Amino acid sequence: MTALRRLGTAVDGNFQGPAAGGMVPPSPRLLAPNGSAPRSPAASRREEAAAASGGGGPGLAPLRPTPAKPPLGSGKIQKRAGGKPRKRAPLWQAALFVSVAIHAGLFVLHPYVNSAAPPHRHHHPQEPQACLTHPEAAGSDGGRRRATQEKAWAAGAPSTGKPAVTPESVINLDHGDPTMFEEFWRGTGAAAEIVIPGWQTMSYFSDVGNVCWFLEPGLDHEVRRLHRLVGNAAVDGYHVLVGTGSTQLFMAALYALSPPAAAPMSVVSTAPYYSSYPAVTDFLQSGLFRWAGDASSFTGDTYIELVCSPNNPDGTIREAVLSSASGVAVHDLAYYWPQYTAITKRADHDIMLFTVSKSTGHAGTRIGWALVKDRDVARKMTKFIELNTIGVSKDSQLRAATVLRAVSDAYELPAAGEEHRRLFDYGRRKMAERWSMLREAAAASGIFSLPDETSGYCNFTKDMASTNPAFAWLRCDREDVEDCASFLRGHKILTRSGSQFGADPRYVRVSMLDRDDAYDIFVKRLASLK
Amino acid sequence: MTALRRLGTAVDGNFQGPAAGGMVPPSPRLLAPNGSAPRSPAASRREEAAAASGGGGPGLAPLRPTPAKPPLGSGKIQKRAGGKPRKRAPLWQAALFVSVAIHAGLFVLHPYVNSAAPPHRHHHPQEPQACLTHPEAAGSDGGRRRATQEKAWAAGAPSTGKPAVTPESVINLDHGDPTMFEEFWRGTGAAAEIVIPGWQTMSYFSDVGNVCWFLEPGLDHEVRRLHRLVGNAAVDGYHVLVGTGSTQLFMAALYALSPPAAAPMSVVSTAPYYSSYPAVTDFLQSGLFRWAGDASSFTGDTYIELVCSPNNPDGTIREAVLSSASGVAVHDLAYYWPQYTAITKRADHDIMLFTVSKSTGHAGTRIGWALVKDRDVARKMTKFIELNTIGVSKDSQLRAATVLRAVSDAYELPAAGEEHRRLFDYGRRKMAERWSMLREAAAASGIFSLPDETSGYCNFTKDMASTNPAFAWLRCDREDVEDCASFLRGHKILTRSGSQFGADPRYVRVSMLDRDDAYDIFVKRLASLK
Repeated sequence: MTALRRLGTAVDGNFQGPAAGGMVPPSPRLLAPNGSAPRSPAASRREEAAAASGGGGPGLAPLRPTPAKPPLGSGKIQKRAGGKPRKRAPLWQAALFVSVAIHAGLFVLHPYVNSAAPPHRHHHPQEPQACLTHPEAAGSDGGRRRATQEKAWAAGAPSTGKPAVTPESVINLDHGDPTMFEEFWRGTGAAAEIVIPGWQTMSYFSDVGNVCWFLEPGLDHEVRRLHRLVGNAAVDGYHVLVGTGSTQLFMAALYALSPPAAAPMSVVSTAPYYSSYPAVTDFLQSGLFRWAGDASSFTGDTYIELVCSPNNPDGTIREAVLSSASGVAVHDLAYYWPQYTAITKRADHDIMLFTVSKSTGHAGTRIGWALVKDRDVARKMTKFIELNTIGVSKDSQLRAATVLRAVSDAYELPAAGEEHRRLFDYGRRKMAERWSMLREAAAASGIFSLPDETSGYCNFTKDMASTNPAFAWLRCDREDVEDCASFLRGHKILTRSGSQFGADPRYVRVSMLDRDDAYDIFVKRLASLK
Repeated sequence: MTALRRLGTAVDGNFQGPAAGGMVPPSPRLLAPNGSAPRSPAASRREEAAAASGGGGPGLAPLRPTPAKPPLGSGKIQKRAGGKPRKRAPLWQAALFVSVAIHAGLFVLHPYVNSAAPPHRHHHPQEPQACLTHPEAAGSDGGRRRATQEKAWAAGAPSTGKPAVTPESVINLDHGDPTMFEEFWRGTGAAAEIVIPGWQTMSYFSDVGNVCWFLEPGLDHEVRRLHRLVGNAAVDGYHVLVGTGSTQLFMAALYALSPPAAAPMSVVSTAPYYSSYPAVTDFLQSGLFRWAGDASSFTGDTYIELVCSPNNPDGTIREAVLSSASGVAVHDLAYYWPQYTAITKRADHDIMLFTVSKSTGHAGTRIGWALVKDRDVARKMTKFIELNTIGVSKDSQLRAATVLRAVSDAYELPAAGEEHRRLFDYGRRKMAERWSMLREAAAASGIFSLPDETSGYCNFTKDMASTNPAFAWLRCDREDVEDCASFLRGHKILTRSGSQFGADPRYVRVSMLDRDDAYDIFVKRLASLK
């Protein structure tokens, strides 16, 4: 139980241990879209190579290979690197349910809000060494699975995300990992597939005439097109900036909006606020900006107010609560899409942030965008990204453009418009189903409460639509439970504590976007708690 | 000439203006690898769409479209967004040679080394509004070209980097944009092509059992394999970490190596040092670390020493110059590859940084990697990237893995090993040619000097190899020229001033990695200067 208690620090991010052993889906690299569509010569070559290696290569690799330098010329299908210091837990440990936790920064930051103590000092010692794993990994079957997966990786197979789950697994809904959407994209076939030849987009530069000189013009085009289609944000008169996820754009906005001053700019947001806001603001102890806590209790005139709407974690629709000539707002509209809420108006704030992670579910692609009115702010945000990462992956920009194009095409082009290809239809149906299941489970349990359901007229779908947030803001009403996250963790459900959002630890945030198998187990398990 | 003088601030990064009008290569999206190889259904669809749009779509779009919201349902091939606030320079301005400049941070930071003045205050006002353009863009031809390019972008074509050049163009060799390598990769066909279906790698997570939980295992595998092949760095006993370019990993290392302390950690490097080091260290005014200038004059005991070898800008082979129990070194080995220098030993430092930008030329992919011995340091670096960008583009990781695999395959697999597919053979031949041309040009001119040629026994190629740095560290010997960058700019050659590297402004850094056309014009122009 010590291991389980350590999960109290669970937040975003990192996973340690032999976790992947629990899951061996067929290598997606070896499956074509839809399971059967044609593939490129490169993909075919890889299949052949993987097949050819079956006899003596990585299939025979030990789970924890010993340091041994493979000879030159041993070919494309080499073993997973020998001597790699992965330090995976030995198999006997894998019989334990031990899970993760790393955004230690997030966890430990909350107590230091408005404190002079540098949060950085508290990050590192807090990082637990736990791991997420599965009972299946304990036996020889787990070993075989791991070996099979390593073989697939050595053959160039891409990763598949978190391990698959069984009814006995720890269910990790701590992160908003949007794998729910995989099912949808498996149904879109070649429309969302991208092919990148070896010589393409090798330059640092994408559009030398643009303020955001590393923005792929095709992505700029599709971002504007999609916003016009959905009607959720104004684009005329705005600059489009691309970032490595919206997190980088959030930092870029802080940098751009923090003028030279003796004291760092105060960064605030109304509680409950997204747990990353304080962590990302403070982790480098910048002299330019500093987390200053709950906007509703802030008393200064000069500030950056972060307005997340629909809000992470509780799904509420928000407006800025502060108003001052020397204050500015950054609107995080990551969840302002029809699958989550009614589109009631075309947002036209000075800085608006979006991301494919939540709009289409492509978190691994790490593409966010900002719509920015002011040219100078746009230029300074661009400068931040230039200094931080010298631009943003063009491969992912091109992929994001392709994915957004597929979304718009399904609504705008009759030939592409079969209903199963309409992302927002799929997403809204799916989210409504999940919320219905969750409300039933909470009712069956009797010890949990959820925010009331709200609805509004959606200008995109032209009908009344209920709100189906991407996170459930769940409250445990049992009087003897003061820490809901710990309580749920005791039942092998990982969530994020309300305390990390500047709120009551009787609340937790639960991701509603995981795969069906994990979500179904979660709901059943929740219903059984009394 | 005012515009030209403003170019004095030219450093890395940004380009403004209608530049792209000067170049209209065929859309690479519409060319298969090798110009004829097979393509995916998605690619074919895009070709058809692009062809179908020829009559009435973006081909008719005005160069500077007026604000007009396209109707819904206008389909996939829409015009470049109406009302977009690009503020491109009007065409008459395009007749001027006006170039770029943005890493203003880099430019202005140098004077503040070891100064208490926060460098941030000086970034923004210094950013020039200049643009890089071409005389060709001034006329109607330029307008047509821009319109054609916008049409291609609207159809999903990827960008093509900096505009093509003519003998009259401003030649921009300020950045190390490695487009020289495009030629090589056009010759590798499907071996380096990647196909990504819409549903792939959507999760935040790549390998939940790894310290670097967002690292694609296939990239880890290929990184280790390539280092074993080349023999330039030890990998056994090292963690592989991935970053959004090595710049992000550099910041991650500063974060990981700066312990809690009353004063920020001092960051130093021997002059001439890479101009980004001070800029990236100081732009957020972190309380954790602070640029402290030239390592050779540093007197403290506690520091992070940045060791770039071969060195950017001057190509010298370097070792750490400081030694102290409480000092640490970060080795930037971006250029330690056989095309640039003899591989004389297997580097085995505690932290070593690499990037595909310089090893294979894929700068737009934004993938760097670190080899890190210590597990705690690896974990803290991972934490930085988690807080900064929540991981690294999986699409680019998969592409980088594919590209590295193609490099290794060409040497290790007989079938793939035709000589034209051997990257390092190509790179060394090309670099040797260019250095020979440059030395001839400098000799013909009579007013420039270059570092002496050196050579060494290369363990990879098993022969003596001369050093062919990726940058030329060029000195102008004319007594009346105190600022070589300004002098060359007067002759429409953009370079980076020695002053930005902590060195004499009689020196400039010149990129040796641009495309043939630009390089050839540069060399001819240089030879003509007296």
